[in-house]
Amino acid sequence: MSQHDAVEIISTKRDRGELSDSQIDWVIDAYTRGEVADEQMSSLAMAILLNGMNRREIARWTAAMIASGERMDFSSLTNPTSDKHSTGGVGDKITLPLAPLVAVFDVAVPQLSGRGLGHTGGTLDKLESIPGWDASLSNEQMLRQLEEVGAVICAAGSGLAPADKKLYALRDVTGTVEAIPLIASSIMSKKIAEGTGSLVLDVKCGTGAFMKTEDDARELARTMVDLGTDAGVHTVALMTEMSTPLGLTAGNAIEVRESVEVLAGGGPKDVVELTVRLAEEMLEGAGRGGQDVAAALHDGRAMDVWRAMISAQGGDPDAELPVAKESETIVAERDGVLTRLDAMAVGVAAWRLGAGRARKEDPVQAGAGVEMHAKPGDTVRKGEPLMTLLTDTPERFERARAALDGGWDIGDTAPELRPVVIDTIR
Amino acid sequence: MSQHDAVEIISTKRDRGELSDSQIDWVIDAYTRGEVADEQMSSLAMAILLNGMNRREIARWTAAMIASGERMDFSSLTNPTSDKHSTGGVGDKITLPLAPLVAVFDVAVPQLSGRGLGHTGGTLDKLESIPGWDASLSNEQMLRQLEEVGAVICAAGSGLAPADKKLYALRDVTGTVEAIPLIASSIMSKKIAEGTGSLVLDVKCGTGAFMKTEDDARELARTMVDLGTDAGVHTVALMTEMSTPLGLTAGNAIEVRESVEVLAGGGPKDVVELTVRLAEEMLEGAGRGGQDVAAALHDGRAMDVWRAMISAQGGDPDAELPVAKESETIVAERDGVLTRLDAMAVGVAAWRLGAGRARKEDPVQAGAGVEMHAKPGDTVRKGEPLMTLLTDTPERFERARAALDGGWDIGDTAPELRPVVIDTIR
Repeated sequence: MSQHDAVEIISTKRDRGELSDSQIDWVIDAYTRGEVADEQMSSLAMAILLNGMNRREIARWTAAMIASGERMDFSSLTNPTSDKHSTGGVGDKITLPLAPLVAVFDVAVPQLSGRGLGHTGGTLDKLESIPGWDASLSNEQMLRQLEEVGAVICAAGSGLAPADKKLYALRDVTGTVEAIPLIASSIMSKKIAEGTGSLVLDVKCGTGAFMKTEDDARELARTMVDLGTDAGVHTVALMTEMSTPLGLTAGNAIEVRESVEVLAGGGPKDVVELTVRLAEEMLEGAGRGGQDVAAALHDGRAMDVWRAMISAQGGDPDAELPVAKESETIVAERDGVLTRLDAMAVGVAAWRLGAGRARKEDPVQAGAGVEMHAKPGDTVRKGEPLMTLLTDTPERFERARAALDGGWDIGDTAPELRPVVIDTIR
Repeated sequence: MSQHDAVEIISTKRDRGELSDSQIDWVIDAYTRGEVADEQMSSLAMAILLNGMNRREIARWTAAMIASGERMDFSSLTNPTSDKHSTGGVGDKITLPLAPLVAVFDVAVPQLSGRGLGHTGGTLDKLESIPGWDASLSNEQMLRQLEEVGAVICAAGSGLAPADKKLYALRDVTGTVEAIPLIASSIMSKKIAEGTGSLVLDVKCGTGAFMKTEDDARELARTMVDLGTDAGVHTVALMTEMSTPLGLTAGNAIEVRESVEVLAGGGPKDVVELTVRLAEEMLEGAGRGGQDVAAALHDGRAMDVWRAMISAQGGDPDAELPVAKESETIVAERDGVLTRLDAMAVGVAAWRLGAGRARKEDPVQAGAGVEMHAKPGDTVRKGEPLMTLLTDTPERFERARAALDGGWDIGDTAPELRPVVIDTIR
């Protein structure tokens, strides 16, 4: 495969040309092996960001990243598999109630998840607030749990798409994260390598999401749905609201608590609605559509799977969850209607309180975060609590409050709110 | 100066923003110190290539590169200084007769030159074919020779614009050479740091030049003239023809021989014309315009300075020049008029014969190159020589012939030729 060189490939994309299959295969392989240098891949990434890639190029790029590592195989399982991926938002604990809910209907849910970085939380960080729970499973343990319990949420092994891992770290320091073809291929290479039979994408849109506008979110959703479909994975994307946080909690233990409320038939309306919509799409994709999903939240079946899933990974579903040592309350400055509560402001505040990390080796605080007492559209009264800030380290309150400064509005009339699910892309 | 970070600066240019003076100063300084990594600078270079820089940004970028190193000072000299820079072409030996010619008229000519890389030859490589001649001078030796002889051609010290040196090596391997703002600032940072009072740019245009089209050549010329003017250097650019080689030789010793012919009042018409035009502009820029320049080529005054200049650097102006051990002749395949002789084809052939180098540590052959017996517009007869290929290593003939394949046309009617000087940009 030494028929190409990096400068030729960079120059092709720089001059708005199309990369051939052979060029793409070579550059991903050579980069993984270290023959193409970081400074060459970063200038190629910038050229891709500014000049784009077409559907064929993105599909080949994704296939080359998959080929750089292992593939998983769920074909030995009794039930079909279905997976969900969210592009990341504030208060997005949906994976926690969703995985057990879908497993109720004889669909296996392999959720390979990550940790949080920056203002968006990580599913593993949230679950690790449950005493004893372990994110690391071998492939054999994972397959056994999928067969016996039906749902697993665990850390992705490093063997899937190593090219993506290397490229993602490079993009992070070279201003090339924001390229839709590279975002799409990064997500989809891991999901396709994972071997799921169907996939539902939750593409967040709004101030707290990576995609701020509906146009960008729709383009990313379309690109990923095309990639999945081309690779033989039944793929659907929901474009969902992320201008305001999901639910009433943004943190780790407090999000687990809210998830358990949903599994017990309660919980905030938006979290329940999105969980049920995603579950319906996952079941449809796995050939098990048309069932009364919400019922399983009310009759204890989803909770049973949750308890089995947590126990199987060493966690105690009955243990007390960690609570932050310190709290401060933010109150409404006037009577009125909450017209805006900015997801980014809340996400950054939760991060600064200790719920998130700035570098991937940093620890997180299990009890830290922001608990909300009102959401946009709710009536508020002067002096009543809007939010509670939670942390073990009170010196963090000041910077968290600064992040929230200007992060909400109270008006006289109810705001027009976007629906939880803005659009569905098939 | 740690108020910036690389990702912020890359993102600004990626999103078509203007870089502030402070961002530019910081990124050049931090890159020179190694705080900004190669992979960050290369993605910034690609963003600059694709999104451009305005006049202020280019001027500041150039100033920051100058500030990364030393500046020279010619203010102690009796005579004003004038310098010439060519963007590089095939058979471009103009510096050799030009520097002594200008010095005849009481203008000091400090020609800091480079070695060849790829198909364009290097002035120092050519002069080093003169037995004894030494390219390395200290600053003191250079100043003394400028005062006593009036002209010096020597190697540029590494102290001028070290940021440019580092950035140029990076651009070479990351597909970011072709950015006009970066080409212009690279050339002009060294020329301004050198401290010349006036500067004439020879911007080559055509198949054998870096700029293939008149539009690109004009944009580069305009950018450099603006940069020089903004920095207080009297700067003019000639846009000159480089679709066909300059003169009848492309190599090292054979170009010295042709230069000496020009200094003796002979030589090819195009070489003489360009030498005189550039000399007139250099004298004009130094406040010594309006003189009969050509006369100094015919009455031996330019030759006297040449001999003194070569002797001052240890060279023997009377020594026999090296001659290649082997030669092969290419003959005309039909009667007619030579309508095209491609500069790139001849340049690559001379390079492959040993006149140039592929890597900067390679040696060059003093006697190698291509001698032309006809130029476009000349009548040729079937079987008569068109070119002689010269090398010490006859196994190189085959690849040199391959480079020349399709490199000329013989027709029935005289071609329309571009003038030697296509345009003047002030």
